[in-house]
Amino acid sequence: MEAHEKGYFTEENSVEVVTGRNANAKSERLKEVMSVITLKLHEAVKQIEPTQEEWMEAILFLTRTGGMCNEWRQEFILLSDVLGVSMLVDAINNRKPSGASESTVLGPFHVADAPELPMGANICLDSKGEDMVISGRILDIEGNPIKNAVIDVWQANDEGFYDVQQKGLQPDFNLRGIFRTGGDGSYWFRAVKPKYYPIPDDGPVGQLLAQLGRHPYRPAHLHYIISADGFETLTTHIFDPDDPYIHSDAVFGVKESLLAKFRLTEDQARARQLEFSGKFWEVNHDFVLAYKRQV
Amino acid sequence: MEAHEKGYFTEENSVEVVTGRNANAKSERLKEVMSVITLKLHEAVKQIEPTQEEWMEAILFLTRTGGMCNEWRQEFILLSDVLGVSMLVDAINNRKPSGASESTVLGPFHVADAPELPMGANICLDSKGEDMVISGRILDIEGNPIKNAVIDVWQANDEGFYDVQQKGLQPDFNLRGIFRTGGDGSYWFRAVKPKYYPIPDDGPVGQLLAQLGRHPYRPAHLHYIISADGFETLTTHIFDPDDPYIHSDAVFGVKESLLAKFRLTEDQARARQLEFSGKFWEVNHDFVLAYKRQV
Repeated sequence: MEAHEKGYFTEENSVEVVTGRNANAKSERLKEVMSVITLKLHEAVKQIEPTQEEWMEAILFLTRTGGMCNEWRQEFILLSDVLGVSMLVDAINNRKPSGASESTVLGPFHVADAPELPMGANICLDSKGEDMVISGRILDIEGNPIKNAVIDVWQANDEGFYDVQQKGLQPDFNLRGIFRTGGDGSYWFRAVKPKYYPIPDDGPVGQLLAQLGRHPYRPAHLHYIISADGFETLTTHIFDPDDPYIHSDAVFGVKESLLAKFRLTEDQARARQLEFSGKFWEVNHDFVLAYKRQV
Repeated sequence: MEAHEKGYFTEENSVEVVTGRNANAKSERLKEVMSVITLKLHEAVKQIEPTQEEWMEAILFLTRTGGMCNEWRQEFILLSDVLGVSMLVDAINNRKPSGASESTVLGPFHVADAPELPMGANICLDSKGEDMVISGRILDIEGNPIKNAVIDVWQANDEGFYDVQQKGLQPDFNLRGIFRTGGDGSYWFRAVKPKYYPIPDDGPVGQLLAQLGRHPYRPAHLHYIISADGFETLTTHIFDPDDPYIHSDAVFGVKESLLAKFRLTEDQARARQLEFSGKFWEVNHDFVLAYKRQV
């Protein structure tokens, strides 16, 4: 018997010995996943050649990351975000046909039960920030309007905070709403211009970013989940292309096709019509949904 | 500008975009380590193509692993152990010259302040288990005896528990001792035959092992740390080759060269001489230390 047949571990056969133990795994998928994880983990260790002290540093980093997690804070998701893993999983699971709008990360601030509002409603409930009107159409890939599309939208305020981060300071459901398209597939609502904000950076992930010389900011954006019968649900953002962090989103959520145009308008007549008091921002962005894949 | 120059993330350029952010890392080593980790992590995700649900399962597994850690329990080290990472790091850091004894993992049960004992002492303080006498020599790679070598030895009892796991049930420092060689480099002491035991398997790592169809057992062994001036310190085990788990150590610690011979002896005269009451186990194992590397 050779050493590896006896199950004895060496630097050379490490992957085969470890994955060889999984012959009786309860699921083929788990066996496959653990094969890849073991291979890539051992490849990384062999390339890095960590000292015992560096290995212990990694153990303690993961331990601190776990210690930071609670009902309100998911530090492992943050870690996945800043390493580009969340965006990669999103990309793999949302390969769209040509012409369909691209997805991006859901993020941690979606709430399930936002109110359904009439088209044109102002989702800003506390009048703070610079007025903004957003409009566009929900289309299929042939350019036909989609009727009864449900648009779930949410955003941070002009200080970079979501309502759920400032309970008591912002009204409940501030800057959230659900809209439903009519026969022409169009939507519009009023809001305030969002601002860039940092991901929570007072934990191990924030410390890692600092060590890597990286900032924790996400460029200003609005979140959308758009769903309609017969179509793939689209979870995405639109971004302000003039944001200082547009080329360095801490969680890699920006895609070229998600850049909207934020135009500053001084049209007094339209401002009055929209019940705005002066200058306001105007955004127009269409979304194209892909047909549901046959399962 | 191409998309990747703007820092926009795609499935294809994911690694370059993420590692490209580390240009201003505070340490070249951290930058290098994170390059490898990012590359291997993205390679793994691209090969596995996890669903969003599987990704969340992984996040929650790491979160539970973190939640299991406390002053007495290090679940991330256990995870590193059962994935062969701890042994791999040990192997990388302890490449020995030909002829020197091989190392294996330290394990979590070493204590710093075990008593120094005279050669021949019985480290079993509660008379439980099958008597055993262990002897051998500490040698350099030319076969010369090493004088003043310090041998720190510890082991589980015949039920598979270390003293620190059974405070109050076992005497303090049961089955631990430190011995120092004389001019002939030889050592001997009395103990009891150790037994296989499970790694702590009541947490997420134990659940993973169960899902993988793996048992949590380590084959019976004695731990040694052997140090001497001018030599590399050797952290290792000797194993009972007849143990039922010798080919499937849950943490991959077994190496061919670490198999000792455990012989059952019925020599009544020697038993009396050793103050044993009947049959006893006899183990003879030499250790060869490597000269300290020049730094």
